[in-house]
Amino acid sequence: MKFKVSAELEYDIKAPSTLILNIHALITAHQKVLHEELTIEPPIKIEELNAMNGENRFARLVTEEAGLVKIKYEALVDNYYEVKDHSNVQELPVSSFDASVLPYLNPSRYCQSDKLSRLAFNTFGHIESSFEKVFAITDWIYKHVEYLSGSTDSETSAYDTVTQQAGVCRDFAHLGIALCRALTIPARYFTGYAYQLNPPDFHACFEAYLGGDWVLFDATRLIPLNGLVKIATSRDAADASIASIFGDVYCSNIKVSCDYVGEEPFVPIYYTRSIFDGVTYY
Amino acid sequence: MKFKVSAELEYDIKAPSTLILNIHALITAHQKVLHEELTIEPPIKIEELNAMNGENRFARLVTEEAGLVKIKYEALVDNYYEVKDHSNVQELPVSSFDASVLPYLNPSRYCQSDKLSRLAFNTFGHIESSFEKVFAITDWIYKHVEYLSGSTDSETSAYDTVTQQAGVCRDFAHLGIALCRALTIPARYFTGYAYQLNPPDFHACFEAYLGGDWVLFDATRLIPLNGLVKIATSRDAADASIASIFGDVYCSNIKVSCDYVGEEPFVPIYYTRSIFDGVTYY
Amino acid sequence: MKFKVSAELEYDIKAPSTLILNIHALITAHQKVLHEELTIEPPIKIEELNAMNGENRFARLVTEEAGLVKIKYEALVDNYYEVKDHSNVQELPVSSFDASVLPYLNPSRYCQSDKLSRLAFNTFGHIESSFEKVFAITDWIYKHVEYLSGSTDSETSAYDTVTQQAGVCRDFAHLGIALCRALTIPARYFTGYAYQLNPPDFHACFEAYLGGDWVLFDATRLIPLNGLVKIATSRDAADASIASIFGDVYCSNIKVSCDYVGEEPFVPIYYTRSIFDGVTYY
Amino acid sequence: MKFKVSAELEYDIKAPSTLILNIHALITAHQKVLHEELTIEPPIKIEELNAMNGENRFARLVTEEAGLVKIKYEALVDNYYEVKDHSNVQELPVSSFDASVLPYLNPSRYCQSDKLSRLAFNTFGHIESSFEKVFAITDWIYKHVEYLSGSTDSETSAYDTVTQQAGVCRDFAHLGIALCRALTIPARYFTGYAYQLNPPDFHACFEAYLGGDWVLFDATRLIPLNGLVKIATSRDAADASIASIFGDVYCSNIKVSCDYVGEEPFVPIYYTRSIFDGVTYY
Repeated sequence: MKFKVSAELEYDIKAPSTLILNIHALITAHQKVLHEELTIEPPIKIEELNAMNGENRFARLVTEEAGLVKIKYEALVDNYYEVKDHSNVQELPVSSFDASVLPYLNPSRYCQSDKLSRLAFNTFGHIESSFEKVFAITDWIYKHVEYLSGSTDSETSAYDTVTQQAGVCRDFAHLGIALCRALTIPARYFTGYAYQLNPPDFHACFEAYLGGDWVLFDATRLIPLNGLVKIATSRDAADASIASIFGDVYCSNIKVSCDYVGEEPFVPIYYTRSIFDGVTYY
Repeated sequence: MKFKVSAELEYDIKAPSTLILNIHALITAHQKVLHEELTIEPPIKIEELNAMNGENRFARLVTEEAGLVKIKYEALVDNYYEVKDHSNVQELPVSSFDASVLPYLNPSRYCQSDKLSRLAFNTFGHIESSFEKVFAITDWIYKHVEYLSGSTDSETSAYDTVTQQAGVCRDFAHLGIALCRALTIPARYFTGYAYQLNPPDFHACFEAYLGGDWVLFDATRLIPLNGLVKIATSRDAADASIASIFGDVYCSNIKVSCDYVGEEPFVPIYYTRSIFDGVTYY
Repeated sequence: MKFKVSAELEYDIKAPSTLILNIHALITAHQKVLHEELTIEPPIKIEELNAMNGENRFARLVTEEAGLVKIKYEALVDNYYEVKDHSNVQELPVSSFDASVLPYLNPSRYCQSDKLSRLAFNTFGHIESSFEKVFAITDWIYKHVEYLSGSTDSETSAYDTVTQQAGVCRDFAHLGIALCRALTIPARYFTGYAYQLNPPDFHACFEAYLGGDWVLFDATRLIPLNGLVKIATSRDAADASIASIFGDVYCSNIKVSCDYVGEEPFVPIYYTRSIFDGVTYY
Repeated sequence: MKFKVSAELEYDIKAPSTLILNIHALITAHQKVLHEELTIEPPIKIEELNAMNGENRFARLVTEEAGLVKIKYEALVDNYYEVKDHSNVQELPVSSFDASVLPYLNPSRYCQSDKLSRLAFNTFGHIESSFEKVFAITDWIYKHVEYLSGSTDSETSAYDTVTQQAGVCRDFAHLGIALCRALTIPARYFTGYAYQLNPPDFHACFEAYLGGDWVLFDATRLIPLNGLVKIATSRDAADASIASIFGDVYCSNIKVSCDYVGEEPFVPIYYTRSIFDGVTYY
């Protein structure tokens, strides 16, 4: 799947500061970046960091002067996802998980799975298949949580959202992750560019570890699951914020785009109850 | 420094379960495990996992039968710490941090540094030297937070402790970490065996990243800083709990010991105000 | 309905202290206290206060000396409740509420109705009749929240319970009250002696203001609704704790009893879905 | 002290709704309302309610139609306050408090004194005189909490503010109240019109019960303590919000004024450390 993505960020720098941006398309065996370009006005040296065990690419900017800084990232990406029928996939016990998977069972800043365990068991514990469980979780979130721009902020966590029942994509993802982990299903945050997201923006959803694969889920139902370009996976938004700012800096504008530029027509994939086809981005 | 450490854990297994223990002395360039032994009654196969980028050693047990399980870990450890005068150490800006250090600036489950930033700046922002800042944080915690066994539980976080002002070593560490991160000082959780801890138990303290070194701090003042055998470093207790239990299991007993067996007499190190000698375990 | 109730409380007084007890049967037009007796060993002067607009009777003790204090309250009470079919009761709008009812719409310490409004509307907003709404709330609580002694403490509030899904009668009541208020149904805390409660203890449930009456509800389903002797009604447990202690005092024992001593056989009342008979203690 | 006060409120009514306004100057033995007028456009019947044991005057409006509603309240008020030197006032023990005072020791929605007791004791417990204690509390709040419009919302409580260290007058008041109650000093919320408040707005501060008097304190230091016209006293803002709205209504404008119209020159009173003159509005 070929996508053309772009992000334009504008920052008002009040004093010398450091910014760590998290907007590059990730490079993996199954996501190739055919071309990419990062331009900055005025020109500032950028350092690229390969972080979080290769799950993230950071770009670090050190601004020495106050003023407006415009950052533009553009990339042409070719990625690959697999659709697997999970109806007969044997679920793996925690005793079989690789050490690299175990951290995604732990509670994290925005996903306090330890505080949601009783609720998770009461609500989803009776569902046998793991795929169905996670689908039921996203279904429950979709039905109970209202997508409401501006209703939450950077301190909002899954523990808040489960009661407040309002939020944005990040909150939907955190709640999904927390409920999965509470049920001993490893889950991680996924942030990326999303095709057909309206209005265009960075998107967040999550992956659950099912039968040995990281299967994508999105409780917002706002996008086709096969229209994503991965920026990062992480425990939660604490490790994958679009921009970490150290200094007196204000974001004055964000503009994001994601266009499908493949040759074949784009056939959107959404999950539906009773079909167990899971999407995995390797 | 040679230490002989041991941990005896007893679990009442009600149903087939998986336990992930986090009690092995870590093996690093500066901490040698001269001898170690893990015995289990009844004998159960144990799998050792090298986890969290080598910051942790897990032992995974899968119990197939109900009953009492007794685990005993014993080790003879030789480790090395350095004492460095930080009074003239130049503090490094965030723009210089290695990518591996950056995650320790992020908020985590038990260290919601994002929610403590104003309090941290108001209370400690005026202190110039980073070493003094972190010392002042531990001093403040020592004076404001009462060490009170049983006053907190596994859900208690730094955000709670800063107001409740009571807790155990784990809570003291979490609060120290959260306040450091709020001030853009990377900080991480340190768990280990502790010499002269009374009553004997596993201990938790924290490390702050100062001038390029991970310097040890302990707001409890319960132990000499040079009496530690490292088990793990991590973001917070979520990644380094002594035992992660998946199943119907109750801990019925814990017994821990840590003896100094070096040839030289043990000269305890505690920090005091106005001396800037920091202890680092490499 | 005649009941014989008693409460024995034992306090270990470490230093001169003041205790405010809240264990007297309330005296109302429909609850007569035929006989009552409060004895204290050693004898300490007790002051009785008529508090909270007659919704509560306090007994204030001032202990001048350290030592064990034993308090025993016994009463013979005759009270009266009414059962009214609410299926055709016209619900009153907020514009008709008397000023004395309005405070019971406000959030309180343990009933943060303002934080539960979206959840309440999403879960119960579609139910038309107010009686059915409140019954559905108690039904939901009964099914989702586990009655678990010792799982909560004096800081636990409805906001906690809705997610933790465990608690005792006080927590069940607080959650019921908070959900009612979130739906603009006035609701108040009810504490009393309860017949057939097992093990015997003080009990807490709640009243919702429906069609001009304060109708009793109990999400625990532990007792018959017509087996209560009212001690107090209040906004929540903050205003009606069994004992408010000012000083260094430990409760060493509590023993409570409530026996039915009427001449007619006791016919227990429980609510069931589809029957709209509400119990009101005037 | 004669004041001319006014409040203009504008509401956008989307559907038939009920509003309960809390903007009338309270009428007490020491606050006379010489003249007052409430006008509404379009004319809507208003019902005045004497609520909360005379501590509050409510005005209830029932709007039957959608549209813009403009409410204007104007009053000429003559009130009286006393200044008493508290340096030799004997503090009263809890055993002497009248039953009507006791509720102001209890935690409430926005003043979770039960969760702040250790912090309050650690920070202020050593101060002997109650007046000094409360002054120290307001001083601590003034120095630690930044007055920052828009930093909090209607869910923010003292438990949040003590850590977030930012808020508006209401948050300053709640924190002061909570800390007082934690130290067994009864305290209540005070809302009113405030002379010399800039920008003009409704104001909130608090009263502490000292030596038998309700003494006014204001941690914001934004106004002279003798420039107030009381609207209500209450447990906290939950019982005294300017407007309680039941329905689909948006506040589109608020304009408040408070002018001193006495004949004598206005001599502002502020507290200063070491002077123990407390202001009481009877």
